[in-house]
Amino acid sequence: MAKMILHGNFRSSAAYRVRIAMNLKGLEYDQVSIHLRNGVQFSEAFAKLNPAHLVPALEDGPNVLRQSLAIIEYLDETSPSPPLLPKDPAGRARVRALAQDVACDIHPIDNLRILVYLEKQLGHDQKARDQWYAHWIRLGFDCIEKVLAGGKATGKFCHGDTPGLADICLVPQIANAARVKLDMTPYPTIGRIHAECQKLPAFQKALPQNQPDAEK
Amino acid sequence: MAKMILHGNFRSSAAYRVRIAMNLKGLEYDQVSIHLRNGVQFSEAFAKLNPAHLVPALEDGPNVLRQSLAIIEYLDETSPSPPLLPKDPAGRARVRALAQDVACDIHPIDNLRILVYLEKQLGHDQKARDQWYAHWIRLGFDCIEKVLAGGKATGKFCHGDTPGLADICLVPQIANAARVKLDMTPYPTIGRIHAECQKLPAFQKALPQNQPDAEK
Repeated sequence: MAKMILHGNFRSSAAYRVRIAMNLKGLEYDQVSIHLRNGVQFSEAFAKLNPAHLVPALEDGPNVLRQSLAIIEYLDETSPSPPLLPKDPAGRARVRALAQDVACDIHPIDNLRILVYLEKQLGHDQKARDQWYAHWIRLGFDCIEKVLAGGKATGKFCHGDTPGLADICLVPQIANAARVKLDMTPYPTIGRIHAECQKLPAFQKALPQNQPDAEK
Repeated sequence: MAKMILHGNFRSSAAYRVRIAMNLKGLEYDQVSIHLRNGVQFSEAFAKLNPAHLVPALEDGPNVLRQSLAIIEYLDETSPSPPLLPKDPAGRARVRALAQDVACDIHPIDNLRILVYLEKQLGHDQKARDQWYAHWIRLGFDCIEKVLAGGKATGKFCHGDTPGLADICLVPQIANAARVKLDMTPYPTIGRIHAECQKLPAFQKALPQNQPDAEK
């Protein structure tokens, strides 16, 4: 079978999620780097893969997949081992909700196109944009920390003792938080799980700085 | 079995999604209205259901579920008929991506808390906020229209001839678009599918104006 092709960017935390998922499943893939600050996501070629002009997009033979959570569920259905979701519906809902806390309620609000709008259309300076960026991470992490610290299902990882979809979304968001030097002391459980994830080669290999298109 | 309890609000498009899903499956549920403009989502009682202070939350016996997409997948797993996702992984990924085009890349950016931040923290007037609101819907609908109009899998509904997760997310977002009088002429496929959905009692019954807490 032909190798899958991940169209992403070392800086994109949504692409980072897909890299972790593929690494956890031991899937081989080639990477095509979409230069976001140069606007390559608006090219005709990329629009054919994803008319939303957002990374990632994944080519799996004839199938072109978009939206990181949809891609990861696809990978989990087509390469079920190791599973990224628990077996029971309530557990699956818990993990998906944690993933969506990041993928719906933090990341899209802080995405590059929003920051560009805040700057170009609304005239906000770097300081206001950084405050915006940190604000939505804090609200999201406040919720996630409560769910993780108070949940009997929390283990070494977000759900039990194996990494899954929630960890896959959380770790790249922590990398984003670090970029604005967010104070992580209110989030000891998130921090503990992050450290646990970083021990795993699948997470290491997916780090932004370990990608072929990484800039200093 | 005890009836499920949906904590939502007639105005919340995320709660609206869950109402449609439950109606399609013929599930009975009670509703508790969380008054968002009065800040009831920040009450201690509600924070126990969802520490993110966002609606909806669904109580199903001892299970408390959050995040509308996670809730709908839970309902689809626990009450599989009629299914809200196709059987094949590529089809499921297509439907989930369309759902996430709304639930990740439009709705959270236009949510009440964002509009409040734009007003209170950043001092933007109603006109600037309406432009913001419409801008992100247009970007999202531009993508969704292309995917639907160009896709062989598109049928009477977003995917084939039965309503599913993508329709469930799309219809409430169209209601939001109508609130800012968004020009829908560039989106004929979205419009056609919307009209198709409105013929179904499950969608009718879920309309904001048909909820017990609806205001004029």
